[in-house]
Amino acid sequence: MIIIMKDRASTEQITQMETRLKNLGFQTHPIVGEFKTIIGAIGDKRLVDMEALKTLPGVEDVVPIMKPYKLAGRELIKEKTQVNVSGVTIGGKRQVVFAGPCAIESEEQVVGIAKAVKASGASILRGGAFKPRTSPYSFKGLAKEGLEILKTAREETGLPIITEVMDTRDVELVSSYVDMLQIGARNMQNFSLLTEVGRTNKPVLLKRGLSARVEEWLMAAEYIMSEGNENVVLCERGITTFETATRNTVDIAAVAVVNELSHLPIIVDPSHATGHSKYVPCVARAAIAAGADGLMIEVHNDPQNAMCDGPQSITPGQFDELMGRLAAISGAVDRSL
Amino acid sequence: MIIIMKDRASTEQITQMETRLKNLGFQTHPIVGEFKTIIGAIGDKRLVDMEALKTLPGVEDVVPIMKPYKLAGRELIKEKTQVNVSGVTIGGKRQVVFAGPCAIESEEQVVGIAKAVKASGASILRGGAFKPRTSPYSFKGLAKEGLEILKTAREETGLPIITEVMDTRDVELVSSYVDMLQIGARNMQNFSLLTEVGRTNKPVLLKRGLSARVEEWLMAAEYIMSEGNENVVLCERGITTFETATRNTVDIAAVAVVNELSHLPIIVDPSHATGHSKYVPCVARAAIAAGADGLMIEVHNDPQNAMCDGPQSITPGQFDELMGRLAAISGAVDRSL
Amino acid sequence: MIIIMKDRASTEQITQMETRLKNLGFQTHPIVGEFKTIIGAIGDKRLVDMEALKTLPGVEDVVPIMKPYKLAGRELIKEKTQVNVSGVTIGGKRQVVFAGPCAIESEEQVVGIAKAVKASGASILRGGAFKPRTSPYSFKGLAKEGLEILKTAREETGLPIITEVMDTRDVELVSSYVDMLQIGARNMQNFSLLTEVGRTNKPVLLKRGLSARVEEWLMAAEYIMSEGNENVVLCERGITTFETATRNTVDIAAVAVVNELSHLPIIVDPSHATGHSKYVPCVARAAIAAGADGLMIEVHNDPQNAMCDGPQSITPGQFDELMGRLAAISGAVDRSL
Amino acid sequence: MIIIMKDRASTEQITQMETRLKNLGFQTHPIVGEFKTIIGAIGDKRLVDMEALKTLPGVEDVVPIMKPYKLAGRELIKEKTQVNVSGVTIGGKRQVVFAGPCAIESEEQVVGIAKAVKASGASILRGGAFKPRTSPYSFKGLAKEGLEILKTAREETGLPIITEVMDTRDVELVSSYVDMLQIGARNMQNFSLLTEVGRTNKPVLLKRGLSARVEEWLMAAEYIMSEGNENVVLCERGITTFETATRNTVDIAAVAVVNELSHLPIIVDPSHATGHSKYVPCVARAAIAAGADGLMIEVHNDPQNAMCDGPQSITPGQFDELMGRLAAISGAVDRSL
Repeated sequence: MIIIMKDRASTEQITQMETRLKNLGFQTHPIVGEFKTIIGAIGDKRLVDMEALKTLPGVEDVVPIMKPYKLAGRELIKEKTQVNVSGVTIGGKRQVVFAGPCAIESEEQVVGIAKAVKASGASILRGGAFKPRTSPYSFKGLAKEGLEILKTAREETGLPIITEVMDTRDVELVSSYVDMLQIGARNMQNFSLLTEVGRTNKPVLLKRGLSARVEEWLMAAEYIMSEGNENVVLCERGITTFETATRNTVDIAAVAVVNELSHLPIIVDPSHATGHSKYVPCVARAAIAAGADGLMIEVHNDPQNAMCDGPQSITPGQFDELMGRLAAISGAVDRSL
Repeated sequence: MIIIMKDRASTEQITQMETRLKNLGFQTHPIVGEFKTIIGAIGDKRLVDMEALKTLPGVEDVVPIMKPYKLAGRELIKEKTQVNVSGVTIGGKRQVVFAGPCAIESEEQVVGIAKAVKASGASILRGGAFKPRTSPYSFKGLAKEGLEILKTAREETGLPIITEVMDTRDVELVSSYVDMLQIGARNMQNFSLLTEVGRTNKPVLLKRGLSARVEEWLMAAEYIMSEGNENVVLCERGITTFETATRNTVDIAAVAVVNELSHLPIIVDPSHATGHSKYVPCVARAAIAAGADGLMIEVHNDPQNAMCDGPQSITPGQFDELMGRLAAISGAVDRSL
Repeated sequence: MIIIMKDRASTEQITQMETRLKNLGFQTHPIVGEFKTIIGAIGDKRLVDMEALKTLPGVEDVVPIMKPYKLAGRELIKEKTQVNVSGVTIGGKRQVVFAGPCAIESEEQVVGIAKAVKASGASILRGGAFKPRTSPYSFKGLAKEGLEILKTAREETGLPIITEVMDTRDVELVSSYVDMLQIGARNMQNFSLLTEVGRTNKPVLLKRGLSARVEEWLMAAEYIMSEGNENVVLCERGITTFETATRNTVDIAAVAVVNELSHLPIIVDPSHATGHSKYVPCVARAAIAAGADGLMIEVHNDPQNAMCDGPQSITPGQFDELMGRLAAISGAVDRSL
Repeated sequence: MIIIMKDRASTEQITQMETRLKNLGFQTHPIVGEFKTIIGAIGDKRLVDMEALKTLPGVEDVVPIMKPYKLAGRELIKEKTQVNVSGVTIGGKRQVVFAGPCAIESEEQVVGIAKAVKASGASILRGGAFKPRTSPYSFKGLAKEGLEILKTAREETGLPIITEVMDTRDVELVSSYVDMLQIGARNMQNFSLLTEVGRTNKPVLLKRGLSARVEEWLMAAEYIMSEGNENVVLCERGITTFETATRNTVDIAAVAVVNELSHLPIIVDPSHATGHSKYVPCVARAAIAAGADGLMIEVHNDPQNAMCDGPQSITPGQFDELMGRLAAISGAVDRSL
């Protein structure tokens, strides 16, 4: 940690800061410049809250040297993590495709879509039983009945299943059905929920919050991991920007940034990232080429009558065509699909 | 609602859309232009999900005419709402100040601050018992013990108390202690939590999400109101932008925008909006002049040793000085403080 | 165009609006709903400024139906445009790579880099003679001497050359040297400059402004085209967002959005988009897979001693390796490199 | 300056960095921590471009200690600057109001508005002769004829005049007419233009760019000042964010941030910040209370027929009413209007 003192800082203020740092267990190394004094503070105190130091008199800024996350970062864990979802490995050479409808509407719908996406090469089935909707008047999902349908679809296809959990009270129930839990973008900083899923033994897909910097996203992963559950997969699904042509703006470089800073796998969701089925193939292709460890794509047999997110869902036929293209790109970057 | 058809849309596609709209209960009014056809659809269907219409062939865009919120909007409820918090009216002529520490640390701390801010003119005491923290290693609050301390502070000062609730499982407990519930910015779209507080009879302070447009914020209020709890107060606390000099960027015009679109009271939180105590007075003054119905300000007796958000907390002495200034501005805009 | 009247709008206000629209040459089609009246206005008036209509009493909103751009849009020009830069076609099957140093430093440097990037498959040489720098104390380029060096590099390699022009007074000079003019992101709405390059017969590369929506970007292209120069190529180079891990956030979906809305070719600049050489390959691969018509990549023989943008420049060796990878991806999307 | 080396940095890399820093004239102070080494580098090198250091092997980050601006900052110039515009002082106790139409349309219009706003207390007359318009088909201003009209209005009212200059070729002409030059938001990083107005002796109003951090804005001021013209006034006019209810989002805290970092005066433009006349009073009141050194407000006698920005213009009557309110607020913050 480095403390930058104001150019007007008095000798007394500098001494006061040094004393405080020593009391906190740091070794201090003051460097006196022409205008300003800086104090280097040695000691791995990332787990201690240092923001209070900014309030001491004469302080201009406090610059951390160590990352604030430990379990999620590359500093201590160098090897890329592989997360095993009931036999499907995420974070290996193979780029894994999650596919399925936004919301679970009926057994016929889900099983039909599941068979189709499996035939096209998808490895994990997604489907919402509890739906976060911006309007209280929208369809909110079939809840437990939806979980039962998902289970049936798994039995029929062998695909592991993932669904979103939105409420701490539902974590136990949902965990008893699915192979992987999903935390939605709007709950990325729902710390109670992060803690609760951290206490399960289910792999967790953690979507990036709409206004979360990569560092905040990794801190959310740290929340889950600090409870003992280290099977976290990150999912880039677009951030909020001023652009209105797409629902969100996908941050494709985040694939490389996350790979630099963290050992956790990262996948991309082109459906929420764009909000329009016509733009899904472009972003899906880009994500595979960028080196994402997988994709999550919304597929619906009848988007015109979907109960949720129809405009961003592609049909099984479009999905099949897209998968062929993605496989070729995957090969071109020495991965497989 | 207006449906804009693509310039390449066929007569058949236009007929198909008209049929669908009629089946949904709309009267249709097609207008044929040189390049494009538009269809006006009459009927108040704001409660029905219309996004699926965008997926029909030949459709370029769907433009809603009615606002998606009903209970939170000005279209049906013209009069400004006044929310009563145990005798304190929010939304009237008087601009109401909420003050107190970020986190509850001890009875001595909270009671001391409570007495001080009351003496300076604050009307409601704030203090966090459950703290949402971006790092899992930070202090997360005293939980139930904190609620007890808040209760004591109310007994000693007579100030109504507000605290944040983060978990659906805590809503009942927290409601049994406080006069008003707070939903934090990171939970603005935690729909389970919105639903749960909507089922209590406690007034709710709903902070704006970090990437929420005013419309999304009003939809979150609608969630609470649609459960029967219409005592919602909005709190602007800064949004996420590219600027890094402040923690967030306060959207001061939101005070006027909310007053245009909604009948709900709106207050401003200059502490989270800026993240630096030195900038708090500037934004507090601006908010009072802008016409906010109140302020929420973090006050700590010893910011250098605060367990949370020390850098953005002002001292009781600074608060007292600020209140004098704010009272003068309040008078200049025909309000009182 | 559709005029949405407020629910409180009087009959008189509606009549007044209809009269005004008719005077402007529109046919009007009022539709009276339960709460609001809307007026459909038929007539292609995209070239007339309609915002004043919003100020009429009783008006809630004015919704345009036609796009505000005409020459840059797909509505009237359906075929993809191909721009010819001294024999290199942009917008065809082949994805075209522009490469070269950020700033021109010396003949030796530029000619050396030019030969290297040509050998690796680049088609156009870039290099800055006039540099926009955020600090007035930074190196601002060699100006005319830089243009001479670029010319020499073209003679030595046969590569067409492109450089940025920043000042209306330099357009004539720069045009006399180069094969293509570049408008930088910070000048995307420098309307005098757009007008001036629109009067030349040189192809123009128009970088997206840091806070420009796609629609505003296309309007900037319209500026150039409305002066008679229709050889415009768009360049996505990242937009300003809250993320700080990269210099900007590249909007990869913009490749698909532009292809939907416009017939103009679009390329991507991964160097400015990320600001770090280590992230350049990720975004370059993504752009090729997304379907961009080309790339612009900063290459420097000695990034540690570059006079500008060293941290985002890759070396000729890295460029060569990257090109091999890109060619494979290009093939996988049925293009060539 | 502080260099943070990667935890994997070798001793050789650290030595190499130290050597390089010494060659650049710095004294170096290495501090070896458990995981990382940091190097403190002493010496005021803010005028040297240090980004190349980031490209050296083993470097994680380079943290500047000194601000990159010198003339615009508070580090060397402690006293608040007062800018004199033909007798009107900006930056003193009095908060100065600039008012007038967006575009100059006729002598009758401008002189009429000028007389009205002067009577209400405005001190400087604004009016556009050269208009930056996002559409090439919009009215672009009367150019020289507009300057003549402005001059007449000054003769008739005694108000100093300000107008925007957009093109380096027009700087001399415009300077010969007006009392103050305006640089528009879209030209904030038009470095040729900044340099050119820096060579005049006219005070300059520098609008904040739509995606400019405060630091970038101050660097733009530094550009002008480094040419010898230190009479720069900053103007906050809203930044681009995701919110669409207003044209831009005004950053009201920037008033305090600028006062902390710079000695230059700062005013606020509520018209462009909001884009709607109905929201102008709210932001104008907020800016006066926040402590801005003035306001720039668009006033038009007939907004419904304005040739530019009608929706955000208020009438002389509304302006007069607003000024009364603003004077009261100004008094409440110990300023005058």
